Amino acid sequence: MSPPSRDILSYGSVGAHATSDISAVIIPDPLTCAGVLARRSKAGPLSGGVAAATSSDLFKPKAAWKPKAKKWDHRLSEESKSRTASTLKEAARYLATPGMISLGGGLPSSDYFPFEYIDVKVPTVGKFSEAETAESGKVVRIGKHDVQTGKAAFDLAISLNYGQGTGSAQLLRWLTEHTEIVHDPPYRDWQCVASVGSTSSLDMLYRMFLKRGDYVISEDYTFATAVETASPLGCRMVGVKMDAEGLLPESLDELLMNWDEEARGARRPFLLYTVPSGQNPTGSTQGKKRREDIYKVSQKHDLIIIEDEPYYFLQMQPYMGRDAPAAPLPKTHAEFLSSLVPSLLRMDVDGRVVRLDSFSKVLAPGCRMGWITASEQICERMSRHNEVSVQNPSGFSQVIIHKLLDEEWGHSGYLDWLINLRMEYTQRRDVLLHACEEYLPSEIASWAPPAAGMFHWIKIAVEKHPEFLTRSVKSIEDELFLTAVSEKVLVSPGSWFLADKGVEHKELFFRATFAAAESAAMTEATKRFGVALRKVFKLD
Amino acid sequence: MSPPSRDILSYGSVGAHATSDISAVIIPDPLTCAGVLARRSKAGPLSGGVAAATSSDLFKPKAAWKPKAKKWDHRLSEESKSRTASTLKEAARYLATPGMISLGGGLPSSDYFPFEYIDVKVPTVGKFSEAETAESGKVVRIGKHDVQTGKAAFDLAISLNYGQGTGSAQLLRWLTEHTEIVHDPPYRDWQCVASVGSTSSLDMLYRMFLKRGDYVISEDYTFATAVETASPLGCRMVGVKMDAEGLLPESLDELLMNWDEEARGARRPFLLYTVPSGQNPTGSTQGKKRREDIYKVSQKHDLIIIEDEPYYFLQMQPYMGRDAPAAPLPKTHAEFLSSLVPSLLRMDVDGRVVRLDSFSKVLAPGCRMGWITASEQICERMSRHNEVSVQNPSGFSQVIIHKLLDEEWGHSGYLDWLINLRMEYTQRRDVLLHACEEYLPSEIASWAPPAAGMFHWIKIAVEKHPEFLTRSVKSIEDELFLTAVSEKVLVSPGSWFLADKGVEHKELFFRATFAAAESAAMTEATKRFGVALRKVFKLD
Repeated sequence: MSPPSRDILSYGSVGAHATSDISAVIIPDPLTCAGVLARRSKAGPLSGGVAAATSSDLFKPKAAWKPKAKKWDHRLSEESKSRTASTLKEAARYLATPGMISLGGGLPSSDYFPFEYIDVKVPTVGKFSEAETAESGKVVRIGKHDVQTGKAAFDLAISLNYGQGTGSAQLLRWLTEHTEIVHDPPYRDWQCVASVGSTSSLDMLYRMFLKRGDYVISEDYTFATAVETASPLGCRMVGVKMDAEGLLPESLDELLMNWDEEARGARRPFLLYTVPSGQNPTGSTQGKKRREDIYKVSQKHDLIIIEDEPYYFLQMQPYMGRDAPAAPLPKTHAEFLSSLVPSLLRMDVDGRVVRLDSFSKVLAPGCRMGWITASEQICERMSRHNEVSVQNPSGFSQVIIHKLLDEEWGHSGYLDWLINLRMEYTQRRDVLLHACEEYLPSEIASWAPPAAGMFHWIKIAVEKHPEFLTRSVKSIEDELFLTAVSEKVLVSPGSWFLADKGVEHKELFFRATFAAAESAAMTEATKRFGVALRKVFKLD
Repeated sequence: MSPPSRDILSYGSVGAHATSDISAVIIPDPLTCAGVLARRSKAGPLSGGVAAATSSDLFKPKAAWKPKAKKWDHRLSEESKSRTASTLKEAARYLATPGMISLGGGLPSSDYFPFEYIDVKVPTVGKFSEAETAESGKVVRIGKHDVQTGKAAFDLAISLNYGQGTGSAQLLRWLTEHTEIVHDPPYRDWQCVASVGSTSSLDMLYRMFLKRGDYVISEDYTFATAVETASPLGCRMVGVKMDAEGLLPESLDELLMNWDEEARGARRPFLLYTVPSGQNPTGSTQGKKRREDIYKVSQKHDLIIIEDEPYYFLQMQPYMGRDAPAAPLPKTHAEFLSSLVPSLLRMDVDGRVVRLDSFSKVLAPGCRMGWITASEQICERMSRHNEVSVQNPSGFSQVIIHKLLDEEWGHSGYLDWLINLRMEYTQRRDVLLHACEEYLPSEIASWAPPAAGMFHWIKIAVEKHPEFLTRSVKSIEDELFLTAVSEKVLVSPGSWFLADKGVEHKELFFRATFAAAESAAMTEATKRFGVALRKVFKLD
């Protein structure tokens, strides 16, 4: 897109480079970690008091040269369309009048929050391990009245009171900046909204778009919870064929071209749920070209894409084989970011992607905090729903994560943390792959080395089972699962992840994770699984 | 109810007293704070590892002499009925096998949770104010591996990992014990399930019971969010008349007796949403007799009662008037507990009450944590829904609140905290009432002193407005609201809280809160409201 001339950039020219035509728009350089400080100082003090109204728009450029998102009224459910703003939260605007005393709201006084301060011991940047933290970690303090006393931008008196459906201004600012640094969405009116985790967001998005009887499109094998969340809403998944790079765009196109509303008893689906990086359960990662093709098919059929990306930052180093030296780690943040496959959000000129980000796999699941990035319209609907359900993430989570990621590490330190995680997960994956190479019978077990995530997807040549002709794949899967259990190793049968359990599956897979167990235990477990495989397939 | 003989109490006889018939059941004394330790030691070590399955049943007596709850299949929505257990969470049972190594789940390793410990400075029991905490508060530490090292029952490695839809075993044990100490429900199979706050629980309960077009019964004036949560689901509230003690049972009965499905275009409602103590917005508190009568009418019409009780422990001292000495505070925990109006849960022989408890008004709203108490069937449905939406409260919230309420204060110290809050809120209420007596024109403003909660409900004799005959009540309300705003005081107009905004209201109320502002500001605000009233009603 070439920028329209004469447009005015109201956000200013922090880090901008002028074009040769002085009447043209000045397009600023993409935001980097280093540019955040200048932008913040230009934006002025954060308005982040108790239950302060906020929006991503306060923390990003107006970017008048970018197109606006499409409107999704034709896709919204009756439930979502009818949401209105909360009466009481609306009235909060009168509080801005100087001298106003409120007897209006029901916000309790922080006098009665029984916490004077919270100290958290966290790693310093670059020394991230438990051992290093014990030695050189830093204790950061969150006081009750740090904002009032000018010590910090966020405190317990604010974070532990009621908030807004967007999440706090402090958290939202960080989320918006991070999203711009990593994805820089190519349309103008994108926003972020904090969530209590991506499972909750998914539940809310289904309710935003679906009605009973609808289908959701997903990969053939998919995150079991995505299916189990849809099912009580009267909705089923329809799977799209996959290869080692995940969802096949031509199969997606074919499915939609040939959709027979009569035969299916359902309207043509328009909601695509996909996990592009380190997909659960298959561990597959869509390459750039694959994502572009999926996006094109989505445009052709006017789909909304739920891009669920818990493992985006668990993209690992290329797998080099058992005896090869490890690939060198990215040396700079720019190198790190460009090593990541671009997100669907980054190519989303229409505002049709709803991206789900989560801290569960990169900080801790117990944060119960994540965020969505989507068009203003979708974010507004989401935040209305938040107001009358989960409200916002725990104040403890918000203030602790803010203290760590914003005030302590900063964007730059967080990227260092993510590079460290990349290295850790690479090592874990390699341990598991080496064990598989050593202990699994290669005549029946095969796999592609996962490029991202936590999961290793092992294909078992079920047709080599001695009773293959007389038994179902499911019964052989059951036998293998239970034999593995009796050998004291737990692996997850592929059938647990079928998008549509009604469709008979003819292939046999098992999912193993390298996220949890220690190296020695992982190797031992793989050995046991090898024993189980040989027993069931009578290989010795 | 007399206990059946020959029944066996499997929970044991901690604190039990024998009846004269030795073959009869031994009914234990009700649980008290002092009895908790003995019960826990009898129950043995807590099974509270990462994502440990748990249930209230592990923490309460089997109580075979109590009746079982009714079944509610006929009330469950299609959505709720069709929920099934999560495939992956089911598989977790194999983890109990000694020596099992799991490559099955997707739980990340706590090695990568960037928190070594959290220190929290909290008040010591009896010295609860901010000033006292600064002086004599205690710093309590939550380590990452405190369970492994035997230092504590809960730690960061567990609380910050994934959990179960019930909440953690550590939190659930405390919630169950607290509920038994305070309410001792009279049926056998009650349970608790942790929530991310009562607003979220309400949203989930509506979805558990309602279908589009349904009505929910509530007080005539009700919590605006309860209406706004129902409305996008296609459900409306129908209000029941109130007096100074809240909802009138005979009006409830009348409403249901005369329900005309044809005229209403909706089936007879069966879900009653009520705030029995310190109702929002009216501040009214149902007395014991009132609650019994409401329960009886609910039995007659087979209602399910959502008992929303954020203000239960903000029941205050009796109001003694401006110059009378304060009533003496409860001297013992027993005296304190018996000073509280018994809950609907306490009289719930059928298991038809779903009680919502919250930490928002008694610790801090930002905990985003509460719990429901209901029959096993309802709790199981709720926890299934949690699994595919909010999952469980933030691990930070769970572990910090556990550290404070269980390991530091204990049940007994928490009751002391609540007694302290009672005193604080009594003082705040009295300041506001005194200011109202002094500054509001008694010829048009009247009220009943609230016995609980945060709200003061002021009736304005709208018929004394000079233009009453030619103007609507709503236009006079608007004028008064805006005049108050221009006098720089914010109070909430009664019409914001109408259960059914379609019904024209003929009375005029304003809601003021005494929870938030300091004494001097509250008095000044009341003075300003008095000025506004006099201006609008042309009294001077």
